[in-house]
Amino acid sequence: MKKIGLIGGIGPASTVEYYLGLIQKSLAEQNNSIYPEIVIDSVNMLKHDVALENGDYSVLGEYLLSSLSNLKAAGAEIAAITANTEHIVWDRICNNFPLPVISIVEETVKELKRLRFKKALIFGTESTLRSGLYEKALTVNGIKAVIPCDAEISLLGKLIYPNLENGIVIPSDKEKMIALANKYIEKENVDALILGCTELPLAIKSEDVNIPIVNTTQVHINAIYQYAIR
Amino acid sequence: MKKIGLIGGIGPASTVEYYLGLIQKSLAEQNNSIYPEIVIDSVNMLKHDVALENGDYSVLGEYLLSSLSNLKAAGAEIAAITANTEHIVWDRICNNFPLPVISIVEETVKELKRLRFKKALIFGTESTLRSGLYEKALTVNGIKAVIPCDAEISLLGKLIYPNLENGIVIPSDKEKMIALANKYIEKENVDALILGCTELPLAIKSEDVNIPIVNTTQVHINAIYQYAIR
Repeated sequence: MKKIGLIGGIGPASTVEYYLGLIQKSLAEQNNSIYPEIVIDSVNMLKHDVALENGDYSVLGEYLLSSLSNLKAAGAEIAAITANTEHIVWDRICNNFPLPVISIVEETVKELKRLRFKKALIFGTESTLRSGLYEKALTVNGIKAVIPCDAEISLLGKLIYPNLENGIVIPSDKEKMIALANKYIEKENVDALILGCTELPLAIKSEDVNIPIVNTTQVHINAIYQYAIR
Repeated sequence: MKKIGLIGGIGPASTVEYYLGLIQKSLAEQNNSIYPEIVIDSVNMLKHDVALENGDYSVLGEYLLSSLSNLKAAGAEIAAITANTEHIVWDRICNNFPLPVISIVEETVKELKRLRFKKALIFGTESTLRSGLYEKALTVNGIKAVIPCDAEISLLGKLIYPNLENGIVIPSDKEKMIALANKYIEKENVDALILGCTELPLAIKSEDVNIPIVNTTQVHINAIYQYAIR
């Protein structure tokens, strides 16, 4: 099994989801015979946030390349960024990657196609939604993308950061997120809800809405595991 | 703040305790202004277990040195092993460490001295207790060490591994551990209980026994943080 490298810390709660998720999956599928070797380079999330707020994508790209180099130096054979938003700069750094990196966006699109979804509602951070990250990837693959209106993107951003990003689920915030999801589910007749932020699955569960949820964290974990055992 | 390197995965549940503990401590003490940079090299615990069972300390030492080198290559400036048992081979590798490494045993002894404890009951894995790791360190520092008898060391080992090591607290196992602690607390008149295995604090809490507990995981986290901000 290949050694897995994870850029972590954006945020720490989802880093733990990836770490324990990969270990549990490996133990479950390999008769408790292998604890996967994993190296996590956990960054200072605030530096990433400042770069994102300033739209300073070259700085963000440098942070990610530096972290990927750390993972490679520590023996990682494949890598992944444990956040959606950072994938905004994917095109800027993909030619310079020192390791094969598994994209959460590409793997989510594959999963939507596998399950034959045609129209998806996308939730995520302000940076993710305003960048059109998922919209572009879905459209290219013939899947319609629905994102909240501008004011609701801002609202969703505030419901994610800082509490949910730090792993804290505020019940009233959860209610507001679900109400927003239901509004679009009724209005737009979407057939799936993409949780396009690795912390959203901490708050929004399958039982909370009446359409299938695509948990990008879990999709990504499954994909990383499959690449690691190839 | 220095970049922290952690040898993790022995076991994963305590790796998460260290990771989130260091981040929470840093945010709390620095007005939410710094998420510490942390690199975790999470090893295949089963390889370590086999080396320990076979008493193959040179192999175990090689594993640890290799992991420390990975941490250094990924930019770590200080390091720590997130387990007690692996400290058995400390003397074999301390001259070859490529980084300053903070010992859980040394920091625990400092804490016992700071709190003026004179006689401590030690709980830990079979390898830790049979090696005399804590007994030696305490005795050198004038603190009396009490460890369970041979049969009870075996019992305690079975109460730790595999369930507690994997973060699973079985209520009847917890009861047996507390009964064992209380037996020695009454018989030996100890003034502290050292939880000398990084998973034991998942099961044994301060309210479970009537003497102070020394949580080696927390002592270690606090010490690592202090070294990192120096």
